[in-house]
Amino acid sequence: MSDGSEDFNGNISRTGSHRQTDHHGYKVRFPPAKGLFTELAEGVKETFFANDPLREYKDQPRSKKLWLSLAHLFPVLDWARSYTFGMFKGDFVAGLTIASLCIPQDIGYAKLAFLPAHVGLYSSFVPPLIYAAMGTSRDIAIGPAAVLSLLLGTLLQEEIDPVKNPYEYSRLAFTATFFAGVTQAMLGFFRLGFIIEFLSHAAIVGFMAGAAITIGLQQLKGFLGIAKFTKKSDIISVMESVWGNVHHGCNWQTILIGASFLAFLLTTKYIAKKNKKLFWVSAIAPLISVIISTFCVFITRADKQGVAIVKDIKQGINPPSFHLIYWTGPYLVKGFRIGVEAIAIGRTFAALKDYQIDGNKEMLALGTMNIVGSMTSCYVGTGSMSRSAVNYMAGCKTAISNVVMAIVVMLTLLLVTPLFKYTPNAILASIIINAVVSLVDYETAYLIWKVDKMDFMALLGAFFGVVFASVEYGLLIAVAISLGKILLQVTRPRTALLGNLPRTTIYTNVEQYPEATKVPGVMIVRVDSAIYFTNSNYVKERILRWLRDEEEQQQEQKLSKTEFLIVELSPVTDIDTSGIHALEELLKALEKRKIQLILANPGPAVIQKLRSAKFTELIGDDKIFLSVDDAVKKFAPKSALNV
Amino acid sequence: MSDGSEDFNGNISRTGSHRQTDHHGYKVRFPPAKGLFTELAEGVKETFFANDPLREYKDQPRSKKLWLSLAHLFPVLDWARSYTFGMFKGDFVAGLTIASLCIPQDIGYAKLAFLPAHVGLYSSFVPPLIYAAMGTSRDIAIGPAAVLSLLLGTLLQEEIDPVKNPYEYSRLAFTATFFAGVTQAMLGFFRLGFIIEFLSHAAIVGFMAGAAITIGLQQLKGFLGIAKFTKKSDIISVMESVWGNVHHGCNWQTILIGASFLAFLLTTKYIAKKNKKLFWVSAIAPLISVIISTFCVFITRADKQGVAIVKDIKQGINPPSFHLIYWTGPYLVKGFRIGVEAIAIGRTFAALKDYQIDGNKEMLALGTMNIVGSMTSCYVGTGSMSRSAVNYMAGCKTAISNVVMAIVVMLTLLLVTPLFKYTPNAILASIIINAVVSLVDYETAYLIWKVDKMDFMALLGAFFGVVFASVEYGLLIAVAISLGKILLQVTRPRTALLGNLPRTTIYTNVEQYPEATKVPGVMIVRVDSAIYFTNSNYVKERILRWLRDEEEQQQEQKLSKTEFLIVELSPVTDIDTSGIHALEELLKALEKRKIQLILANPGPAVIQKLRSAKFTELIGDDKIFLSVDDAVKKFAPKSALNV
Repeated sequence: MSDGSEDFNGNISRTGSHRQTDHHGYKVRFPPAKGLFTELAEGVKETFFANDPLREYKDQPRSKKLWLSLAHLFPVLDWARSYTFGMFKGDFVAGLTIASLCIPQDIGYAKLAFLPAHVGLYSSFVPPLIYAAMGTSRDIAIGPAAVLSLLLGTLLQEEIDPVKNPYEYSRLAFTATFFAGVTQAMLGFFRLGFIIEFLSHAAIVGFMAGAAITIGLQQLKGFLGIAKFTKKSDIISVMESVWGNVHHGCNWQTILIGASFLAFLLTTKYIAKKNKKLFWVSAIAPLISVIISTFCVFITRADKQGVAIVKDIKQGINPPSFHLIYWTGPYLVKGFRIGVEAIAIGRTFAALKDYQIDGNKEMLALGTMNIVGSMTSCYVGTGSMSRSAVNYMAGCKTAISNVVMAIVVMLTLLLVTPLFKYTPNAILASIIINAVVSLVDYETAYLIWKVDKMDFMALLGAFFGVVFASVEYGLLIAVAISLGKILLQVTRPRTALLGNLPRTTIYTNVEQYPEATKVPGVMIVRVDSAIYFTNSNYVKERILRWLRDEEEQQQEQKLSKTEFLIVELSPVTDIDTSGIHALEELLKALEKRKIQLILANPGPAVIQKLRSAKFTELIGDDKIFLSVDDAVKKFAPKSALNV
Repeated sequence: MSDGSEDFNGNISRTGSHRQTDHHGYKVRFPPAKGLFTELAEGVKETFFANDPLREYKDQPRSKKLWLSLAHLFPVLDWARSYTFGMFKGDFVAGLTIASLCIPQDIGYAKLAFLPAHVGLYSSFVPPLIYAAMGTSRDIAIGPAAVLSLLLGTLLQEEIDPVKNPYEYSRLAFTATFFAGVTQAMLGFFRLGFIIEFLSHAAIVGFMAGAAITIGLQQLKGFLGIAKFTKKSDIISVMESVWGNVHHGCNWQTILIGASFLAFLLTTKYIAKKNKKLFWVSAIAPLISVIISTFCVFITRADKQGVAIVKDIKQGINPPSFHLIYWTGPYLVKGFRIGVEAIAIGRTFAALKDYQIDGNKEMLALGTMNIVGSMTSCYVGTGSMSRSAVNYMAGCKTAISNVVMAIVVMLTLLLVTPLFKYTPNAILASIIINAVVSLVDYETAYLIWKVDKMDFMALLGAFFGVVFASVEYGLLIAVAISLGKILLQVTRPRTALLGNLPRTTIYTNVEQYPEATKVPGVMIVRVDSAIYFTNSNYVKERILRWLRDEEEQQQEQKLSKTEFLIVELSPVTDIDTSGIHALEELLKALEKRKIQLILANPGPAVIQKLRSAKFTELIGDDKIFLSVDDAVKKFAPKSALNV
């Protein structure tokens, strides 16, 4: 490499510029060039190990390191030692509360994924136990979740008809769950959790609201007791389907049950919102609704009068399902694709709330949990947002609340499932509608509208995509908008014209600070981004446009001509060959107009690359200053006198 | 909207902070909130009309506007009025020179696209005439180009076998050319030219070098006189094919012709490089080679001894081909896909050299030219880099040199094509090898290696992708690397710890300036990017990591504890809801550690959004300063005294 052979050592020796008007003796410095390996290693570290996970291991004996690794994999080892009875009391109450909430939800969510009701319950038994040992979050409640169930159902039914081939359908569901788990575990193990950071908050809020509406619409089937319902999820198909069936007459008993209990549930939710201490009212309301409505149906035998009931619920705990997973054939590939897709999306929404402490560690725990789940007749589970909130409010202390919940679910499976046979579908529809209402986060939507109109457009795009087309389409829109915003950000960085705040050495954006005055004969431009191939042309053109605008103004107002262009590089963290090329072109264009190019405060990476590309020689070392003020002090007085 | 209702007008009234130690009276300002429409309009303008194309139209009468629009579409109207005989002399010489270069190249490039030789010549007749009327560049030379021909050939032969079904093949080629033209014209019309800015310079250099090697390898067929040659383009398949045929013996006459003329061509190229004035030697060398070798073959009837010759060359100018384009059926879709793909790639490489004045205008001209070309038996043409360079050096003044070239090609087609029948394929191979040698830009590659090691990796990736896999695969790698770099840039922005340069008010990166000293009790961090959902979590974590590192150091060296964290926001051009959320979390984390959060110099967009989200109220207006120096002056002395 050609570094270090030059005759200046570590800073630009502005020869002949010692008589400059700088008020101090500082010069632009650049650190020694880093080798390829160092640069690569640092890049990898910042990308994958941004949270510095090995910090604890530093300077520890080997046995301690082993223990730390084990405790890293199974955090239970860490907190179990300090577990007290007082903590158990909290966990016990919380566990019971979330169990009462999850049992009816599980049955409903399983239906959303077109799976038998007991599979939903299975998924709240084994996975929470695995998570309790490996997870890092205290108050997350594990089990099936609404949006993920909807998504899995949508993806699976495109491959196999759940009504005609329920056996193959559930096999594919377990296969997809297995690969979802593998994907999660891999992402966690290879520390690729950061990949999900590419969906914007606004797009997620819009998508979630859209998904909530879609799930709600799907519930109209159970709510109105419609037998033949569309398989599509967009609002128009659903409304047509509803309209067609309404003409044929609905089952009034079903509607009565659904509507009265929905009103009950929403009332308890409202009460809980008004008085946080009464959160348990809304938490146990679903179970109470199920019990009362089941009892009513059983007594009146309303199912004989057309009220649809759960029926197909099996007794007993999870049977093994290892042999059901497709290990060969075309469904292996399909299961893989669906699993990866479901988890890529599910992961995204996990990031919305602040439940994750160490994203990558959490992914590993969730992944292992789903792998084991797929072999014990469970479908994809994750942390449920609504139940996690209840868990927290019910005073959970550790992941033991999940264990309590799992045990309750187990007892339910062993003892009381036969009773659920007479549970009307309408009540499950009401419970799901009640649960997804809170996914419509209109407060955040309003905040986004206030803060950033463009972001709000992204939100609307994702929302209408889900509601009017499909979940996948809405997601596509969300991703496209998010990526588009990123790309726009890097192709069209902001630039600002700077002026001096009188009696200070501060140079600021003249648009923001009208009191900042321009220095006669000098134009100061700040570029607010790294200069890369994506924006190098634009930056050059934009600077020349500032100059043209300035010149027009000068002609009109008969001011002195611009003789110096100072480019403030403080925010320019990096530059590449295209960027340097653009600077060279800028220099040429300025030379034609007899304007001198001056650079202020280039950062370490920038000055080093400018030097490697010999741009510092081209422009002249005496044209590079530590601050705008230094540069102005050197050049401005002269030119101002020239007027 | 909630703007303007607050009781401060346009600046944060730091109540109670008037006794602050600021040495001036300036406060952080924010401009009035912009409406949705203004914001949208400005965004569209900066994205699509960054070069402000309507500047000329301002304040002009209607007739003038019409004339400007016409002249905008047909720049010939503009420059034709000032065309002189002196200019024509330059154009005439340049036109003859590029004609002598393009005739043999066209025949060779057509073979690269698996099209008959005369189609190559057709493509140098009609398209240059259209371009001359509509193009903006003076020295671009229009016609078939090496990489684009290779790419079109690769894409087309995947659909139709050019040997078995030459008629259908050429029909698909015209269809693809038509849609390539439409795509170009649309991109130009809708000002989407900026889309191509997403391929990094390094990836393009690597791809081009790889394509040159691939094209060179393909020429071994003609060069060695191999009859059965692999259809794959990767180096391993080609080498196996060559090796297999070498065993069966080669045609020594073919190799003799190819090798001797390649030596001649490379020698002339070297001479031209050493002495720029002798560029014409290398420019006419190909035509001379063709004439001499054709004459030799004709005299010795070497074709009877196994020397492959061009043979299938038709006399006469372009026949119409409108009826040959697939307007219906599956090939319509395929032709569309290939055309779009070819142009998306071709466009990318056009940006490499600085031939474009107005990218979008140029696209419109090239698109129209290809649409007309597809109806007159031409295949996709563009500006050839090597011929454009010759055109410039030969002293072209306007696009008339393209007209001269077109006329020479027309005369060739009408009068002398029968003579090309005996041109040996080996000579065409030599000419193409000679032409693509200059695509291997090792000087730039070396510069990239010097400036940025990571960029060089991207270059190598694209290069080896093309050479060892295929053109498409190489391109995929190039795009993936380029996009990956952009995404990495936005997820992992740089941050820097700042220190004060003694005796100044300047705060700079302590890594770059070891003389910068930290202020006791105060940590100053600068974030070097807009804070968006992509990086908000990382930025928060990174700041907390700086803090942890600092605290460890303080414990070791028994220094005073950090009490104030100043975040310098000058480079933070924008923030979104995720970013604000991250700041809120940072504030919470700091409150736990009893550290005060202070913001310095937020830009207009940032302060406005912080205010909309009420973060300014949360942190307190007296914690927001115009500069780091102001903040330090207010807080540092106190804390320093606390030691």
